[in-house]
Amino acid sequence: MTSPAGDSLIWSKDPNHPANLIPSLCAKFWTLGWVTGTGGGCSIREDDLVYIAPSGVQKELMKNTDIYVLSLATQEPTLKQRTYLRAPPSLKPSQCTPLFLAAFTRRDAGCCIHTHSQWAVLVTLLLEAGNPPGSPAARVFEINNIEQIKGFGRGHNKLGNLGYHDTLRIPVIENTPHEEDLTEFLEAAMDEFPDTYAVLVRRHGVYVWGADVHKAKTMCESLDYLFQLAVEMKKLNLPWISSIARTAPDRDY
Amino acid sequence: MTSPAGDSLIWSKDPNHPANLIPSLCAKFWTLGWVTGTGGGCSIREDDLVYIAPSGVQKELMKNTDIYVLSLATQEPTLKQRTYLRAPPSLKPSQCTPLFLAAFTRRDAGCCIHTHSQWAVLVTLLLEAGNPPGSPAARVFEINNIEQIKGFGRGHNKLGNLGYHDTLRIPVIENTPHEEDLTEFLEAAMDEFPDTYAVLVRRHGVYVWGADVHKAKTMCESLDYLFQLAVEMKKLNLPWISSIARTAPDRDY
Amino acid sequence: MTSPAGDSLIWSKDPNHPANLIPSLCAKFWTLGWVTGTGGGCSIREDDLVYIAPSGVQKELMKNTDIYVLSLATQEPTLKQRTYLRAPPSLKPSQCTPLFLAAFTRRDAGCCIHTHSQWAVLVTLLLEAGNPPGSPAARVFEINNIEQIKGFGRGHNKLGNLGYHDTLRIPVIENTPHEEDLTEFLEAAMDEFPDTYAVLVRRHGVYVWGADVHKAKTMCESLDYLFQLAVEMKKLNLPWISSIARTAPDRDY
Amino acid sequence: MTSPAGDSLIWSKDPNHPANLIPSLCAKFWTLGWVTGTGGGCSIREDDLVYIAPSGVQKELMKNTDIYVLSLATQEPTLKQRTYLRAPPSLKPSQCTPLFLAAFTRRDAGCCIHTHSQWAVLVTLLLEAGNPPGSPAARVFEINNIEQIKGFGRGHNKLGNLGYHDTLRIPVIENTPHEEDLTEFLEAAMDEFPDTYAVLVRRHGVYVWGADVHKAKTMCESLDYLFQLAVEMKKLNLPWISSIARTAPDRDY
Repeated sequence: MTSPAGDSLIWSKDPNHPANLIPSLCAKFWTLGWVTGTGGGCSIREDDLVYIAPSGVQKELMKNTDIYVLSLATQEPTLKQRTYLRAPPSLKPSQCTPLFLAAFTRRDAGCCIHTHSQWAVLVTLLLEAGNPPGSPAARVFEINNIEQIKGFGRGHNKLGNLGYHDTLRIPVIENTPHEEDLTEFLEAAMDEFPDTYAVLVRRHGVYVWGADVHKAKTMCESLDYLFQLAVEMKKLNLPWISSIARTAPDRDY
Repeated sequence: MTSPAGDSLIWSKDPNHPANLIPSLCAKFWTLGWVTGTGGGCSIREDDLVYIAPSGVQKELMKNTDIYVLSLATQEPTLKQRTYLRAPPSLKPSQCTPLFLAAFTRRDAGCCIHTHSQWAVLVTLLLEAGNPPGSPAARVFEINNIEQIKGFGRGHNKLGNLGYHDTLRIPVIENTPHEEDLTEFLEAAMDEFPDTYAVLVRRHGVYVWGADVHKAKTMCESLDYLFQLAVEMKKLNLPWISSIARTAPDRDY
Repeated sequence: MTSPAGDSLIWSKDPNHPANLIPSLCAKFWTLGWVTGTGGGCSIREDDLVYIAPSGVQKELMKNTDIYVLSLATQEPTLKQRTYLRAPPSLKPSQCTPLFLAAFTRRDAGCCIHTHSQWAVLVTLLLEAGNPPGSPAARVFEINNIEQIKGFGRGHNKLGNLGYHDTLRIPVIENTPHEEDLTEFLEAAMDEFPDTYAVLVRRHGVYVWGADVHKAKTMCESLDYLFQLAVEMKKLNLPWISSIARTAPDRDY
Repeated sequence: MTSPAGDSLIWSKDPNHPANLIPSLCAKFWTLGWVTGTGGGCSIREDDLVYIAPSGVQKELMKNTDIYVLSLATQEPTLKQRTYLRAPPSLKPSQCTPLFLAAFTRRDAGCCIHTHSQWAVLVTLLLEAGNPPGSPAARVFEINNIEQIKGFGRGHNKLGNLGYHDTLRIPVIENTPHEEDLTEFLEAAMDEFPDTYAVLVRRHGVYVWGADVHKAKTMCESLDYLFQLAVEMKKLNLPWISSIARTAPDRDY
């Protein structure tokens, strides 16, 4: 599956090289409770090269030698068997791979993060319990008039960020027994919500992407903040949507 | 925007130099959940020099070279375009700048911290939901008879700290789409509450200042402690104000 | 109790040697709140050698010289007085010893972790309060349709992991005044639930084991995640068991 | 207040020397939320020498040079002005000093820890709200049948630890505006509860002591664990006292 030459792809003294950065990000995510028990994952794309955390590794202990590398040009998301430029000999590739690739190919993303954050899971459970099964309301998380919403871009190929009065909408897809089977539903949600940078997966977690590591990570942090806030608001009987009026036209953000 | 000489302002071997201290404080604040997703910020003033964390940087990764420096004497809070003694070439100045300057000019503060702490946001939401819109009760957080209240000074130009039986009052202003537009409301709250060292911003967070870094940081910690306690008290149906009588005159604190 | 030669068993430069790994694991567990106040413990087996954290030591400060070593072949679980290949001169052996040995002898486990996690304790209290005393429902924690369930193996000598639609079942045994007296009940629960990798102890905590350190630790993390999620679900009136249908036969995991 | 010779008391290469250990303990306590905003404190006694953390210092930044040292033999708890063997020139002594001394003189303790843990404060608020003012029930925290209770000694000059079925009782005293005024009430609670190793202070925090640092710290951790558990139990409508019967006589612990 890998050529000996592949190892040159994952050795660098630069801490921001993807093969070094993915392990340090995953260690940080572990402390945040996002990748407990080998759950979740992370991938970085640099031009045609895609670096992916492996399956089943303790996320706070990951090393550069655990990283998979593949060429985006040679991939189709639905492939069952992939060819890697570099594959660790004793590990398994992440089942998140086709979902990461969807963000890279459909949104030109440079980084995609998948977390099992409990706040994300609880938000999807609250939407499920509070709305008729399959109803539109059960399939999108909405919140507005919270400052942290300004941490999100307006959408792919759009300039600027959301404003304070804008409603952040994150679609929710149903979980499937096999993670790679989520791909078609993730892609459909991307089509239905062309401006979203994230998709929630019911009873499972969230996928968040961005143009680069900085944007993907900070949007993932902001989203986790909003999910936690939303859960606490529910405990305190505070609604997620408020009717505070926009009193003046928005300027640039 | 910056002279080459400006860089001398941000290089020092002293870990307590503002250009070193702001990054180490921000990294600490990130672990406390105060500056998630590039939210929040921090500024330190030494005499006429004001050092400010930039906009949009991952707070736990900030470096001294990211710091803006300006001269307080040459500033008006309402300026839209500022001249900096030192500006990082590829970053944007913080939208919090005029709010930090308000604390420096109106209260002679030496440090101002802005957090997006969820506990602060939840307290403002509880005040909003529990009181008529725009009512006085919705516009001030009050708590008394909690020991941690003694962590606050009595007010600018007043000696000593609050006592256990004193009621801590933190004004709440409404959020605006653009952070710099908060300035006039922050200043009005400072005028209305001349003894306060903090102003809550509804659905947004809190600004806390003090005569120096030590005082601003420890008051910000104490306030966040009280906000968290207040949210937990609400979940447990415990009132924020109690009528425990002052049984003897207070002595100095 | 120990021969001078015993000390060679606990000195190694390899950070993954059990005498080094147990202290570093326990320090990590301390930050997770699993082994607060000297509670909980950890044991690793390599072939016939069993390494055990001592009783009563601050878990974040443990050293290799604190570790007990015994030979599995020479042990009976019910022994009151054990012979150790290596025993620290001034410490006491863990009361968890016979419970760890039960996992090693009955399930061929390579690692067993015991936590006092509050989430585990709260789950056992909720089962006790919500069901008739001694009823079957009070004696097993059940949850399904949560992605993190896939972090568990199907059972000893079974291939693969649980699926998303499978129901995870963790038996609960009643606590006893003396930890070693739990052994017979732990063994009975192992017999009744031959596929389980964990046993909850009411008002006490949980024992989790696996074929090696990696598997025991990641299952323990996944389980703690599910216990915390279950407690939060209860606060939000969300049921632990849902009737989401399995729409297609499961494939391999 | 201090002789130049006093500084020899706080310089040692031994990390377990009290002048080094108090700062490292306080830094750890800061991460646990016990000493937020300069609240709380810690003191260690070695024979006649008492080492005390100062007032008003950021607890995670404390240094050995911040430590006060006094001779126990020369002290009376009610002294308003003390003589120190060593006093930092620019700091203030802790208002907790007479309370620490009470633990050292009345219980022969070797270490006393004072936290502002929110869990401790919430427990005192719940007792206040759930019982008539001044009633006996409002003045003692009681919990039983939780394993972590075994982390407590049976009492000063008694052998062994509490058992699983024993009820842990921690007295609660009312807060006073001036911390040193708590001393007489703390001492009265010690007299009324001769076996306790801790006293809660309403709306304030908790004092915990033990024969040495190890015992004081691990009992303080166990107590904080039980306070947090008790608050979560209250949210979930679970009673703190259960009637699980002791089925057999206790043996030694």
